[in-house]
Amino acid sequence: MKQISSTANNTVKFIRSLHSRKGRKQSGKFYIEGVRQVGEAVENGFPVDLIAYSPELLVADYGIEMIKNISNTGIEVIEVTAEVFTSFSVKDGPHGIAAVGTQRFYALDDLLLKGLWIALEDIQDPGNLGAILRSLDGAGGKGLILIGNTTDPYHPTAVRSSMGALFYIPIVTVDRKGFVKYKNKKEIFCVGTVCDTAHNYKDQAYYENMVVVMGSEQKGISNELRSACDSLVTIPMAGKVDSLNLANAASIVLFEIYSKQRQK
Amino acid sequence: MKQISSTANNTVKFIRSLHSRKGRKQSGKFYIEGVRQVGEAVENGFPVDLIAYSPELLVADYGIEMIKNISNTGIEVIEVTAEVFTSFSVKDGPHGIAAVGTQRFYALDDLLLKGLWIALEDIQDPGNLGAILRSLDGAGGKGLILIGNTTDPYHPTAVRSSMGALFYIPIVTVDRKGFVKYKNKKEIFCVGTVCDTAHNYKDQAYYENMVVVMGSEQKGISNELRSACDSLVTIPMAGKVDSLNLANAASIVLFEIYSKQRQK
Repeated sequence: MKQISSTANNTVKFIRSLHSRKGRKQSGKFYIEGVRQVGEAVENGFPVDLIAYSPELLVADYGIEMIKNISNTGIEVIEVTAEVFTSFSVKDGPHGIAAVGTQRFYALDDLLLKGLWIALEDIQDPGNLGAILRSLDGAGGKGLILIGNTTDPYHPTAVRSSMGALFYIPIVTVDRKGFVKYKNKKEIFCVGTVCDTAHNYKDQAYYENMVVVMGSEQKGISNELRSACDSLVTIPMAGKVDSLNLANAASIVLFEIYSKQRQK
Repeated sequence: MKQISSTANNTVKFIRSLHSRKGRKQSGKFYIEGVRQVGEAVENGFPVDLIAYSPELLVADYGIEMIKNISNTGIEVIEVTAEVFTSFSVKDGPHGIAAVGTQRFYALDDLLLKGLWIALEDIQDPGNLGAILRSLDGAGGKGLILIGNTTDPYHPTAVRSSMGALFYIPIVTVDRKGFVKYKNKKEIFCVGTVCDTAHNYKDQAYYENMVVVMGSEQKGISNELRSACDSLVTIPMAGKVDSLNLANAASIVLFEIYSKQRQK
């Protein structure tokens, strides 16, 4: 295999283009980096088009083994110099392996929601989005619904902070109206988290099939979604801070639900 | 007041130096940005040396009012151009107000730990550190102990993600040996969170005065600290991910403790 040594190579330029939302939107692809993340994508059968690696940087046995075995899978493999790899790496200490995946979105109308889901309205922080996917999977959750104008779940920061959960948790995108319409038609039980209720999340009855609905840290849930929820809960707080980080709040509620479901 | 229009001005260069750990270490100062964060620092009596603002960028009434009132407090105020402000801003859409604070650390030996504390060993991510401070305050916690070789709690990302909690939660730094010695002498109840125990965090008895001990995501708690803990707990998980984000895990445990303490 010929090693790519020019950062101006077209494939290399394409990989770099995936760092921007525009580049991801145009191609429908996204960037995955690191031995573990690339491994999770491949092992879980997530659509991966291409793997790029730098023999100088890739020292992990697991990664070297993966490159050897990948030739049977139809995934294109390119070899690049350390300099080229660094030109698209988003890590401080690059492990020398990255991949290009195909974004996967689902439509709400095609699904019948089973199990625990979370819906995030207008969420802006990709790190929080990824961490919520990770916690959702850890709490036995089945899927994520993005409502309205949210950050991109295929942003490199979201991919990284999901720690692989992005590759096995389905992501649905829908607008507010579409979500409310679906919810009313299918009678899915929705619990919204808000600041201005006295109803403790610990006192809420949770069901096997349900959606936790959360808004952005700045704005909370819109009135439209609020009205659509069957119940509103809050996390009582002490101290001086007036709210929690969104991923932390989501994790607290999700693991309360998981704990209650385990008890049954 | 004369407006500073040169990015090479010494004070401006000093402010920029606080973005690096080296710069913060040399001066013992740190950088605070945004109307809300600067306001929290000033209102909570946190030692602030200097406030820099750009009249072109600062439009929030609360911020303009703050600049007016600050003249009585002995805090130096400098006016800078939008260009100069942008040269040290760490925000995408700068609000035009920033401050220089004095780092504040406590020594464990000088303290008698009362209430709920959290100890973080070798934690590396400043965003997680800040988010944990925020959750700790929200759960009624009293202080943070940094053990070993950790990230800097005065890193701009930690400051921002703490959402003000950094200004009212005391931070203690200590090495492993020092912590274990203190713990044994004062008989403080310590609960460590680990992956390899069957003991559910929900089944643990929590006390009024106690320390939750957590390690980094990569390494967990060291054997030395593990042995020092009175109890080890885990957060049971479903799914494929093998761990949670550290701030999320901390929040889950802290709010379980807060909830149990409220019930008493």
